[in-house]
Amino acid sequence: MRNPLRLFPLAVSLLVPIGVAGQAPMRDSVLEGVRSWRIAHAHQIVRDLVDFLSLPNVATNQDDIWRNAEWMKEQMERRGIRVEVAPTTGSPVVYGELLVPGATRTLLFYCHYDGQAVDPSKWINSEPFQPVLRRGIAGDWSTIPFPAADQPYEDNWRLYARSASDDKSPIVALLAALDALRAQKLQPRVNLKFLFDGEEEQGSPYLDEFIQGNQARLQADVVIIADGPVHPSERPTVFFGNRGIMTFDITVHGPRVPLHSGHYGNWAPNPALHLAQLLATMKDSAGRVLVEDFYADVVPLSESERHAIAAIPNLDAQLMERHGFAEPEGTGQRLDELIQLPSLNIRGLSSAWVGEEARTIVPSTATAAIDVRLVKGTDHQRMFERIVTHIRRQGYYVTAQAPTDKERRKHSRIAQVVKREGYNAVRTPLDLPMAEVVASAVGGATGREVVKLPTLGGSGPSHLFERLGLPVIGVPIVNFDNNQHSPNENLRVGHFWHGIEIFAALFLVE
Amino acid sequence: MRNPLRLFPLAVSLLVPIGVAGQAPMRDSVLEGVRSWRIAHAHQIVRDLVDFLSLPNVATNQDDIWRNAEWMKEQMERRGIRVEVAPTTGSPVVYGELLVPGATRTLLFYCHYDGQAVDPSKWINSEPFQPVLRRGIAGDWSTIPFPAADQPYEDNWRLYARSASDDKSPIVALLAALDALRAQKLQPRVNLKFLFDGEEEQGSPYLDEFIQGNQARLQADVVIIADGPVHPSERPTVFFGNRGIMTFDITVHGPRVPLHSGHYGNWAPNPALHLAQLLATMKDSAGRVLVEDFYADVVPLSESERHAIAAIPNLDAQLMERHGFAEPEGTGQRLDELIQLPSLNIRGLSSAWVGEEARTIVPSTATAAIDVRLVKGTDHQRMFERIVTHIRRQGYYVTAQAPTDKERRKHSRIAQVVKREGYNAVRTPLDLPMAEVVASAVGGATGREVVKLPTLGGSGPSHLFERLGLPVIGVPIVNFDNNQHSPNENLRVGHFWHGIEIFAALFLVE
Repeated sequence: MRNPLRLFPLAVSLLVPIGVAGQAPMRDSVLEGVRSWRIAHAHQIVRDLVDFLSLPNVATNQDDIWRNAEWMKEQMERRGIRVEVAPTTGSPVVYGELLVPGATRTLLFYCHYDGQAVDPSKWINSEPFQPVLRRGIAGDWSTIPFPAADQPYEDNWRLYARSASDDKSPIVALLAALDALRAQKLQPRVNLKFLFDGEEEQGSPYLDEFIQGNQARLQADVVIIADGPVHPSERPTVFFGNRGIMTFDITVHGPRVPLHSGHYGNWAPNPALHLAQLLATMKDSAGRVLVEDFYADVVPLSESERHAIAAIPNLDAQLMERHGFAEPEGTGQRLDELIQLPSLNIRGLSSAWVGEEARTIVPSTATAAIDVRLVKGTDHQRMFERIVTHIRRQGYYVTAQAPTDKERRKHSRIAQVVKREGYNAVRTPLDLPMAEVVASAVGGATGREVVKLPTLGGSGPSHLFERLGLPVIGVPIVNFDNNQHSPNENLRVGHFWHGIEIFAALFLVE
Repeated sequence: MRNPLRLFPLAVSLLVPIGVAGQAPMRDSVLEGVRSWRIAHAHQIVRDLVDFLSLPNVATNQDDIWRNAEWMKEQMERRGIRVEVAPTTGSPVVYGELLVPGATRTLLFYCHYDGQAVDPSKWINSEPFQPVLRRGIAGDWSTIPFPAADQPYEDNWRLYARSASDDKSPIVALLAALDALRAQKLQPRVNLKFLFDGEEEQGSPYLDEFIQGNQARLQADVVIIADGPVHPSERPTVFFGNRGIMTFDITVHGPRVPLHSGHYGNWAPNPALHLAQLLATMKDSAGRVLVEDFYADVVPLSESERHAIAAIPNLDAQLMERHGFAEPEGTGQRLDELIQLPSLNIRGLSSAWVGEEARTIVPSTATAAIDVRLVKGTDHQRMFERIVTHIRRQGYYVTAQAPTDKERRKHSRIAQVVKREGYNAVRTPLDLPMAEVVASAVGGATGREVVKLPTLGGSGPSHLFERLGLPVIGVPIVNFDNNQHSPNENLRVGHFWHGIEIFAALFLVE
């Protein structure tokens, strides 16, 4: 069979009506076979995922991380994938290859097997590493037993566990997709490479070591980032890059130690007030960043990128209702447009105490934690320097350390500004041949119109691959409302099934 | 002896040169006797104080509090004071009376026996309730053994323990002053009443119950507040009232739950930014409050009050050096003037996380904890309303509760504003006859010029006494650098001795 990707309409049960405009559904026996196989083997596939999710995977515990790596190695080797568990200075990279004789293309799949830190006290009626199945009725999710062997899984059920969606389920779906093809006596038509990162939630600090040391064998026609949620419309989604990120903290210094607000209030300078005044200079009331040249280097969207955005269903009103606010930032642009611009976000504030702990003092310091999301053209270091210049223009002496006595004596406004992480955005051109190949495969597997996001709002290590000259395309599979990074992370079962079908389709591209 | 208060120069060892202008030192055998007695009995007096300080006294533990009350009762009864340990809904009030036949005046001493909460981990080489003695050499305080019975105490040594200065030492000093007089076969010349509050650090919520129920027996010519530190000049200090206080929290609401700053940054409204912008509207860069009519009701200082302030040594430059900042708030007025005005102080900020805990999210809420110090004329409820009006004028919908879904849908800016405590200031006229009597006694006991503060910067329950028509005058005795409310609270021994002498002098006024 030359082209197994001729699109058939899956009996999907998604949240929005099926959009099939421009993608005439067509029967395809291979994808039908994939579907039959995953229905017949649903219990085994979920059991594998539950096993994997039962292994704690917060990267600060390396013993845990290694158990995850060994689990994947065994699963991959069982399927004939050549695996290396490559130690780095941090978590190991699990790298696998399945080379297909005669294949002309190579797909490198990137996933991560570590998870965000957990706070078990915030998980409602379950533990992060003891996966449970839930059924939701009117927004109320109750735990149900895993179904008996002769009972089916329902698409709307959800599996609750840390990394259920971010990012272990894509790994299990990739392996299941391989099984599904082989059950039909088929092999992938492309070489497959798998790179499973063990420290993505920590910013992948050690991934570059591995990538730089393995440039030759990582060569591929495209890197598929199998991470992230699908678009809020719940349509199948392909994204063509990530925003970059730059994080920094500003700590404004006041008196050396907190002072009694009765004895010193009105006289001792208040760093919390000064910080508020400083932050207020950074954005206007519509949320536009006032730092000079903040938007200067943004590479404008191409025509095809603008068209892609225009074609995405506009869900802003529903999202505002869901998230409980009446007015977004911006001057009328929609969310999918705004994430194509750099952002400046106050992600945290802290000074002394609030609530029952509050004390009547003039605080000694006040800190804002800020993240700047970057887009194509905006460099993290240059952005940092522009922000520092802005802070200086507000009358601040800027230092990277706590101020010395001498500095305290000399400067009436002192800001300690510390850059944390920083890397740039990636935006793969939409008109690259591989872009169309991947999007068609995803559309074909699902029979639905694909959302094409020029840049995903979130950040990721795509830039490491771009540095090798590899185009990066994201194929997320998990539900958008998965509580990623938060307590009660979950995976909608139906999305998991579609993920298997999508990956099987990608294994068969030509 | 008609007037025992004829001033003699104590061999004080204070931090600034002795200022004696206008108060010719004069020998006085009674005060000489007090001094000799406290030198001879130094070990016993310190032992009593150490016993008392060894009793934990955080008012959230009522068992502890009652042990303190019983200790005081026993000490007071041993001295012939008629004592009642009066239960309230909270901590008991310990009330004592020593009525003197033929006395025409009555002094009511107010102290508190509870202490601020403790964080033992922040105490350097000691425990909050295990008092230790320390000697400081070049700012380095090393623990020393308590001296042997034949060795003297040095004035510059310090006793470290919670409540060493705030506010147990005045209680022990009052009892020692009585012993010192009686050792000379003297009795006080005034009726003495003692009211020891067990919940001052919690805002004295139950004190008013007792005061209202005991109006007749609390009658006095003056209430002496024996609490607080002396002026930073370390001169003997009398204050004529306290600032009032009003505390409130502002919580600005953004999305219902924190949102991923990549997927939603630039679009979801950021409550931390909005809070910063709101706070920035409240004060100008010089620290002047911009809330309309914030200063409107301030009762101007009288001429004698202005003179009293002008006579206080100006220590602003030294304090700025000590506290490590180059420029105070205000437009050139000195600290002692500025605390005669109401203040608006951001005492804490909180939104999501900063530092290692920071997460790349748009926070859901941002909170500022604020205290407003009040002066004569400014009413706490009126101030709160003016601030709420100010917040509304910035476009906010103001609510006292978390917003409902309906409110979230309707209002683009939502501020939850919650008033906490609130009570008004007290300012006793400086030209009241008792004012001069008290100030003269304090000056006489120390042989030094007295700092007269029209209002102490800090707040206290003075308003409860003012409501009974009783004039309130503060006589603090402890060192200004005592780490009040903080870890490593301490009492300078020399100040404690002078406190005994000051109280003895007050017992002998006519």
